[in-house]
Amino acid sequence: MTAVSLATINAADETGFMAALGDIYEHAPWVAQATFAQRPFTTLSALHEAMTRAVRAAPPNQRLALINGHPDLAGKAARAGTMTHDSKAEQASAGLDQLSEAEFPQFHRLNNAYRQKFAMPFIICVRRHSKDSILRQFEHRLQNAMATELEAALTEIFRIAALRLDQRIEAADKLKVHGRLSTHVLDTHRGQPAQGVAIELLELSQDAEPRLTASTVTNRDGRTDEPLIGGRPLPIGRYELRFHIADYFARVDARQSDPPFLDIVPVQFALAEPEGHYHVPLLVTPWSYSTYRGS
Amino acid sequence: MTAVSLATINAADETGFMAALGDIYEHAPWVAQATFAQRPFTTLSALHEAMTRAVRAAPPNQRLALINGHPDLAGKAARAGTMTHDSKAEQASAGLDQLSEAEFPQFHRLNNAYRQKFAMPFIICVRRHSKDSILRQFEHRLQNAMATELEAALTEIFRIAALRLDQRIEAADKLKVHGRLSTHVLDTHRGQPAQGVAIELLELSQDAEPRLTASTVTNRDGRTDEPLIGGRPLPIGRYELRFHIADYFARVDARQSDPPFLDIVPVQFALAEPEGHYHVPLLVTPWSYSTYRGS
Amino acid sequence: MTAVSLATINAADETGFMAALGDIYEHAPWVAQATFAQRPFTTLSALHEAMTRAVRAAPPNQRLALINGHPDLAGKAARAGTMTHDSKAEQASAGLDQLSEAEFPQFHRLNNAYRQKFAMPFIICVRRHSKDSILRQFEHRLQNAMATELEAALTEIFRIAALRLDQRIEAADKLKVHGRLSTHVLDTHRGQPAQGVAIELLELSQDAEPRLTASTVTNRDGRTDEPLIGGRPLPIGRYELRFHIADYFARVDARQSDPPFLDIVPVQFALAEPEGHYHVPLLVTPWSYSTYRGS
Amino acid sequence: MTAVSLATINAADETGFMAALGDIYEHAPWVAQATFAQRPFTTLSALHEAMTRAVRAAPPNQRLALINGHPDLAGKAARAGTMTHDSKAEQASAGLDQLSEAEFPQFHRLNNAYRQKFAMPFIICVRRHSKDSILRQFEHRLQNAMATELEAALTEIFRIAALRLDQRIEAADKLKVHGRLSTHVLDTHRGQPAQGVAIELLELSQDAEPRLTASTVTNRDGRTDEPLIGGRPLPIGRYELRFHIADYFARVDARQSDPPFLDIVPVQFALAEPEGHYHVPLLVTPWSYSTYRGS
Repeated sequence: MTAVSLATINAADETGFMAALGDIYEHAPWVAQATFAQRPFTTLSALHEAMTRAVRAAPPNQRLALINGHPDLAGKAARAGTMTHDSKAEQASAGLDQLSEAEFPQFHRLNNAYRQKFAMPFIICVRRHSKDSILRQFEHRLQNAMATELEAALTEIFRIAALRLDQRIEAADKLKVHGRLSTHVLDTHRGQPAQGVAIELLELSQDAEPRLTASTVTNRDGRTDEPLIGGRPLPIGRYELRFHIADYFARVDARQSDPPFLDIVPVQFALAEPEGHYHVPLLVTPWSYSTYRGS
Repeated sequence: MTAVSLATINAADETGFMAALGDIYEHAPWVAQATFAQRPFTTLSALHEAMTRAVRAAPPNQRLALINGHPDLAGKAARAGTMTHDSKAEQASAGLDQLSEAEFPQFHRLNNAYRQKFAMPFIICVRRHSKDSILRQFEHRLQNAMATELEAALTEIFRIAALRLDQRIEAADKLKVHGRLSTHVLDTHRGQPAQGVAIELLELSQDAEPRLTASTVTNRDGRTDEPLIGGRPLPIGRYELRFHIADYFARVDARQSDPPFLDIVPVQFALAEPEGHYHVPLLVTPWSYSTYRGS
Repeated sequence: MTAVSLATINAADETGFMAALGDIYEHAPWVAQATFAQRPFTTLSALHEAMTRAVRAAPPNQRLALINGHPDLAGKAARAGTMTHDSKAEQASAGLDQLSEAEFPQFHRLNNAYRQKFAMPFIICVRRHSKDSILRQFEHRLQNAMATELEAALTEIFRIAALRLDQRIEAADKLKVHGRLSTHVLDTHRGQPAQGVAIELLELSQDAEPRLTASTVTNRDGRTDEPLIGGRPLPIGRYELRFHIADYFARVDARQSDPPFLDIVPVQFALAEPEGHYHVPLLVTPWSYSTYRGS
Repeated sequence: MTAVSLATINAADETGFMAALGDIYEHAPWVAQATFAQRPFTTLSALHEAMTRAVRAAPPNQRLALINGHPDLAGKAARAGTMTHDSKAEQASAGLDQLSEAEFPQFHRLNNAYRQKFAMPFIICVRRHSKDSILRQFEHRLQNAMATELEAALTEIFRIAALRLDQRIEAADKLKVHGRLSTHVLDTHRGQPAQGVAIELLELSQDAEPRLTASTVTNRDGRTDEPLIGGRPLPIGRYELRFHIADYFARVDARQSDPPFLDIVPVQFALAEPEGHYHVPLLVTPWSYSTYRGS
């Protein structure tokens, strides 16, 4: 789906407006409908806020219907292929479309337990989480009281809507829905950026194998041409960066032991702020290294 | 087998001397025999050197017989249970008694290839190597010329003898056959040693699962009461230290993110000098760490 | 003097051209004259190279006259106030207009020795050096042979001309005559940029007091709004950065000892590449810090 | 004065006992006298505690007389040469016998202000402080109430007595009156201890020039043969370690810029715990370093 400009939205008639925004809220075109009269929107934030206000202003049972319009995570709708295009892409982003045989029953159990307690589906803005983090949130939120969960569901729905708007509408302003993970490698043996270091980023998981999410090589500034994760929220979760250091030092003829003291340097860390900037560099010699959360 | 003092050896008659030292060289009591007349030995080094000289002075076919007296690695003798007590313990120290189904054929193939090329068994001082390092040496030495391998075999035999002497004889001097791996954890967040940090040491392997070789907790000096490896050669190979940092910082009430930026910090490194001293410390805050080869 | 655009230069008649560029080479309008016919210059580099070629193409005695047109460093012309505007500003940039009583005789002696050996003034692109570095170059170049020094003088004259062009002419391209010194402070105690840290930059000198050359405070990114040195060559020499760390950690309520273990953290380093980029950050807790040459 | 063993003290008659211990408390032989009957003392701590109890048990005016028996710091007695041998050595240890013209009036003013407010001399265990720290304590304690200062004076007197006992009496136990400052230099460029690095330790002062207090060279372990300060309390104050790094890296043929990026590396820190252990190491390459408070 290509992005439409905010100007186009503002100029559209009701049919065009609804065609563009009717499915921002899952199975709830009434949210877009309620904002049509408020055009023009000078910023994307103004549009997002207008939709948020429309949801807040709706009668409780309509809000509940909105909540109930969302599919289970890795649930029946997913298997039956009846989810909306957006929901499908969102669930796939966290690997929920590829659960292992061990994970399916876990989600099944949690979905049932949640529905039994709250009589509604568990809603979470999946793009802000890794699979492990989703399970952790699931367990955690199951402990909440009903009122807390109603509010939590709405908060997540507003986040989902913001991400859908961010993907569909081009505007001068940006919603604060993106984070960034970057790195650089500094060769403190030679006092210069380390060029040509192979780097992998893996998403770690309690119960499953690490999942490779980026594979790149440092440029002449010791940085990567693109951020390791960018243009989207950082999924909350644990990660490992793997820096191929021995190959690099072999190439620049630095003295190393045999086998080299350092070979692939693993750095494990968690991302906890989906909209934050994380810079996780490596300062390295053949015999030492340090790393830190920079920004 | 309890250790005997060098004084006892020096005072022993020929029967006693041979009982103590006859099997230092595998199936070759003539080596000990040749040194009996040179008593007393003022140091353990002097005894070791006398034995080395005896081997060097022997006729070539006797030296070849000495070499051929050694068993294959993870070979027929091992399976048949016909190895000497020493060889059995040595091979077990590197896990050669517990090869996986994938590893057996690898050793089988290498043993055959080596015997075919050199008409003698592949000899290596197993206690100075991890399984991976043994395989690497095996592949490497298969490329050598005959003369080089004859000399390599003797060098390894002298090392094996030195380690057997070190275990059996107590003397004022020590043969230089021990290395040491140690660590400490410094909490640079609070400017003091980190007490109570759980640490594991794993031996890494190309083809097999990591093998846990030590599990300990830091004391009030941020050190471990015992070295991670000590009183023996450091097996050449790759290792991982795992420092349980998030638990520590939670206990001392340092502010961490949720999930904590750093949780278990893995440090991977190689030991390349079996008789060396490696100190691999961790300087750590909840947001940064550094490590290095100290001594 | 305000900058003129390259387009204006290209469009100017001979009088205007000479008015703008006649004094780029010290007391040598013939250099600009020789390039007038080659207009238009598509880039500033092309203009600089044309002038360089004109000097190279001139007869030896004219090149020697060019060299001899330059004033001594901190010499008679300086005291008499008869230097060109450019030379005056250049010598002042390295503090040559404010020599101490001890330094005057040193320059006097070196000027005389140099003239006696080479029968020409000592020429150096002053903006690329600190006073100490100038003295060091002076002593060093006094050892050279005549041919080496003639070439060295020309190299420096081309550098001086490039810097004068850079200051006077605006063009789409930039001559590579600028370096940059920057820093940032990362609070690894709290895992975030250190905001509000006072920083001073001092130029160090063998024989004189340190000279304060910048004084600033870190912004919310832990960086300084402007580079510590930028928009000009980095003067070769030794420097000290002073980071006011105890004040910062007191403000953010981090636990410190009394007196604080770290107070003002001095970092001393040399700049050796006038056109290089030096990034000298500080990663700091109340109990530890590290620094490095980044880029 | 050579040390006497605790056994000798225990065996001595009253004359010998008093000869050995009569002047532990300044002009107050009654303190030693009061403990004579309690012999034998099994430990030095027991002797120190017995003397402390004797002072605590004395009538208030006798305790006040003890306090008043102490000389001013850098006062009349010092200039007249009428201080006890111990007091003279103690005041000299902090440089109070070599005040500058600017410092004399400062001490004079503080002595007078203190006597005017409290009608007694200002007492401080000088060996636990640098000159700057003494002045800081002086200013600080001048703000106290009378009762607080009486107690503070006694605390300092007990510390003075402990240090005198530590110097005079040899025993199996040690009073906890010593601190230690040490360092080591690790060459993380080559992964080994840096041997032959020249190091100076300077005591810093607000108003006076830095005072060189140790000058040494690292041994093959990258350490110094003796601690930088040891066998005495660490004087509270600010210090600078200077590591001659460029000379070292030149000697081991590491590539450096010209001038070298790092030359003499200054590390400034404060000692705040006179009886503490401070280890302040340097991990260094030609392009980076880090330091921390270790233990």
